[in-house]
Amino acid sequence: MAEITLRKARTIIAKTLAKGRDMGLKPLSVIILDAGGNVKAFEREDGASNLRFQMAHGKAYGALGVGQGSRYLMNRAEKQPYFTAGLGTVFGNILPVPGGVLVRDRKGAIIGAVGVTGDTSDNDEIAAMAGIEAAGFTGDPG
Amino acid sequence: MAEITLRKARTIIAKTLAKGRDMGLKPLSVIILDAGGNVKAFEREDGASNLRFQMAHGKAYGALGVGQGSRYLMNRAEKQPYFTAGLGTVFGNILPVPGGVLVRDRKGAIIGAVGVTGDTSDNDEIAAMAGIEAAGFTGDPG
Amino acid sequence: MAEITLRKARTIIAKTLAKGRDMGLKPLSVIILDAGGNVKAFEREDGASNLRFQMAHGKAYGALGVGQGSRYLMNRAEKQPYFTAGLGTVFGNILPVPGGVLVRDRKGAIIGAVGVTGDTSDNDEIAAMAGIEAAGFTGDPG
Amino acid sequence: MAEITLRKARTIIAKTLAKGRDMGLKPLSVIILDAGGNVKAFEREDGASNLRFQMAHGKAYGALGVGQGSRYLMNRAEKQPYFTAGLGTVFGNILPVPGGVLVRDRKGAIIGAVGVTGDTSDNDEIAAMAGIEAAGFTGDPG
Repeated sequence: MAEITLRKARTIIAKTLAKGRDMGLKPLSVIILDAGGNVKAFEREDGASNLRFQMAHGKAYGALGVGQGSRYLMNRAEKQPYFTAGLGTVFGNILPVPGGVLVRDRKGAIIGAVGVTGDTSDNDEIAAMAGIEAAGFTGDPG
Repeated sequence: MAEITLRKARTIIAKTLAKGRDMGLKPLSVIILDAGGNVKAFEREDGASNLRFQMAHGKAYGALGVGQGSRYLMNRAEKQPYFTAGLGTVFGNILPVPGGVLVRDRKGAIIGAVGVTGDTSDNDEIAAMAGIEAAGFTGDPG
Repeated sequence: MAEITLRKARTIIAKTLAKGRDMGLKPLSVIILDAGGNVKAFEREDGASNLRFQMAHGKAYGALGVGQGSRYLMNRAEKQPYFTAGLGTVFGNILPVPGGVLVRDRKGAIIGAVGVTGDTSDNDEIAAMAGIEAAGFTGDPG
Repeated sequence: MAEITLRKARTIIAKTLAKGRDMGLKPLSVIILDAGGNVKAFEREDGASNLRFQMAHGKAYGALGVGQGSRYLMNRAEKQPYFTAGLGTVFGNILPVPGGVLVRDRKGAIIGAVGVTGDTSDNDEIAAMAGIEAAGFTGDPG
């Protein structure tokens, strides 16, 4: 199984933020979780609100927890709000909207997750996908 | 970036409570958070229920966390209840109804937040706005 | 049973801070809890570190919880550290050093607690006692 | 008051890690907190154990909370272990050993904190100090 090294994590963050600037998005925050759900790297752009770490974490952590991108969790929440509410009690942290994207290696194995927050959830997801692919991995938004 | 000094915080609280009395509102509670989301000052009027600190905190803390007044959070909750439910798990504290108002300085920078609770959410917001403006800042209700 | 009205709470805070200035103490933070352990009022002086609300709360909340000033808790901790450690798990918040002072009315009934933090614990306690007595109540430091 | 911009945060992290490599230290993890105690940036080097975010956070967060570098907290813990145990209950996060270093601007104001973990606490602190000073700020280890 491949691994998101720190070098790769930096690339994902840098390219995600670059994509945000290209698209003219609001200040973004980006978290990288490893396969075990532990924080590998994080950056919050100047001008972002204070709790963006928590929001980015909640997207990525929830996605990794169920093995689906956080867009899946939003779709599930639309049909079964008690499901994501319940996940909140068992995970402790979950923000079930797009922007939590699984990172897969060439064989399709989940090797981590990226969480992006700051603009609309759809735009957050676009930026995350750009960052993941720039690092040579495959993003899975759910 | 300007700062909410203790002197300014006292003015905001005093003027918010004065507005409440002028409007004949129920007993109010008012919290002032600094830019980092830490408590600067709080007062709970006589006759208010026991957990009003938590309610005022949840409004102001949630607003600051997303960089939007808590009215935005209520509007978002109406469309995506799982979003604000999720924020509750990542922030730990959030009450997504009006009355959590961002405090902006003359350049528009967010320098803190005020949370008011005790009457209807709409009235709580009106009182908060009055207090913030009496202190020479701009309120942003979301 | 007497009650710590908001007017009384303001007096306690103002006089505690005045005592701190007279003594040349570092910036202080003062919390007032009612008989039920709920926050009535709080102020954090400019220049105080960010989490002083939590520290003031932990002193006052722990004191009220056992019905003894927090100096008692420190003395108990010196002999039985597992006792205050255990209280931490059951109260959720406890800082077992001086500066958490019970407020008693003329009949000796506990009507709330004051928590002060910012200087040495001993000085915090002196300032709290001054504030409580200036409001016409009796302080019980434990 | 100066601010730790993302550019400055990156410099602190890069120079802290570089110092670690120069000294031949084990893999390090570095967190940057802003003045309000919110996460600005974080990196965990390859080979570091999984929960290093939490450890770096606990050092920096505890230091900022009391307005003293985490070496102060270790010294305090040696004399009053119940004090730092209590802080754990009121802050939620605290690791009272060296490596949590306050960041001060030219006027001495606390503008954030850096937490480093991975090698001995003493070495973690040395690396943090190097990173902070390379960014033009003053480190305060406590």
